[in-house]
Amino acid sequence: MLGEYMSNKVYIVGAGPGDPELITLKGLKVLSRADVVLYDRLIPTELLKYARRAEHIYVGKSPGKHTFSQQEIIKMMIEYYEKGLNVVRLHGGDPFLYGRGFEEVIELRKRGIRYEVIPGISSIYAVPERFEIPLVLRGVASSIGIATGTEDPHKGRKFVDFKKLARAVDTLVIVMGSRNIVNIAKELVEAGLSEDTPVAILRAYLEPEIKIFKTLRELINDEIKIESPVIIVIGDVVKKSLEWYESHITKV
Amino acid sequence: MLGEYMSNKVYIVGAGPGDPELITLKGLKVLSRADVVLYDRLIPTELLKYARRAEHIYVGKSPGKHTFSQQEIIKMMIEYYEKGLNVVRLHGGDPFLYGRGFEEVIELRKRGIRYEVIPGISSIYAVPERFEIPLVLRGVASSIGIATGTEDPHKGRKFVDFKKLARAVDTLVIVMGSRNIVNIAKELVEAGLSEDTPVAILRAYLEPEIKIFKTLRELINDEIKIESPVIIVIGDVVKKSLEWYESHITKV
Repeated sequence: MLGEYMSNKVYIVGAGPGDPELITLKGLKVLSRADVVLYDRLIPTELLKYARRAEHIYVGKSPGKHTFSQQEIIKMMIEYYEKGLNVVRLHGGDPFLYGRGFEEVIELRKRGIRYEVIPGISSIYAVPERFEIPLVLRGVASSIGIATGTEDPHKGRKFVDFKKLARAVDTLVIVMGSRNIVNIAKELVEAGLSEDTPVAILRAYLEPEIKIFKTLRELINDEIKIESPVIIVIGDVVKKSLEWYESHITKV
Repeated sequence: MLGEYMSNKVYIVGAGPGDPELITLKGLKVLSRADVVLYDRLIPTELLKYARRAEHIYVGKSPGKHTFSQQEIIKMMIEYYEKGLNVVRLHGGDPFLYGRGFEEVIELRKRGIRYEVIPGISSIYAVPERFEIPLVLRGVASSIGIATGTEDPHKGRKFVDFKKLARAVDTLVIVMGSRNIVNIAKELVEAGLSEDTPVAILRAYLEPEIKIFKTLRELINDEIKIESPVIIVIGDVVKKSLEWYESHITKV
């Protein structure tokens, strides 16, 4: 096959949580050699500067507003590859953790296209870490549950059973939960979680930073409105952060 | 305070899963400026080369064989800092995800020592990704449970309830589970998971690579023995890997 002698490749790369210095060395290396970069929303523009000789194509999806469909993105990846180019598909965070990286891999695999996946730091743990919230901690939490909060638990068919999750794990992390967090909080209390369970609603490495520290009770009573993206952490580990200490202990 | 005018710091850094190119740019930057590096087991030695002018001190813990206790490590971090040095505490993976980074933060915070936490790529997701196993995937898995497998579920006091976890999440990831995996598998089947549920036992970015693909039934019947460290993934997402396809489909 001719393809065997070609040296170009498609790189599916995680850019990390938003700080350009939190990409990996390997990610940076392939960016600097890229001919085309197809990049997501929330990618720091400083990173694109490393891809000096590349064409930069924005393929990000804002809620309800798609510039390119996932099929169109895959089509572009294939077309540029077939021209003999090095293609970088730059995902926010990690390509496989609530990204579409694996779906892209499947399409490339089918066609015998050379590709490589390069992981990235995920905001799922990097954002809590930024606020010094450990997701696990000896004597406090041994297990983590991670779920999407895109479904309203009070409506329709459910993929995530928050009631079961609440009872099964010590720390619960919800991604894409900004819209449904109040109803999810109600569901968790119905499942038996204490109304005093602490919740952190966080954004870091992206502007503006968000740090909201509440109990489930406060969250439900305040009927709070939150802009995406945020990482939501629920469980006793939240009390370990200085922020919790300042917002809920010192005022007593 | 005199400390205000000093510029040294303690950096708690995640080295990533073992490939030296999977450290972050920020991690590399602080390594290159370090005066002392306190490094864990499983840190790639190539990384230490970037800390050219630093003293390198091995503080890793092998199972049952500690060179330094956690208290001694913290004492060293403080002593070197108080000499005015830049100290890098280099953890495998991410410092907070089943590492002791947060416990170190608490001790530094107490003493008013300047520090910074720099996240790392965790093997929890990077290792499955290396074998092209997505932990979440539209239509297949929306939630992930992560737990330590250090406890034998058939013995004594339990921190992790594998029965509840099995029923609550789509994908289960077990870290530090090499010793107890057969008993955990039995517990999952007792909880109602199908005996045909696929399991991947994986090691990547470290030698020797491990890739064992079995069903829960096979795992229990084979009474398999595994060397740590491994990442264990349980759930239908495992079937998406080429390896599963080759080991369980093509032989039919």
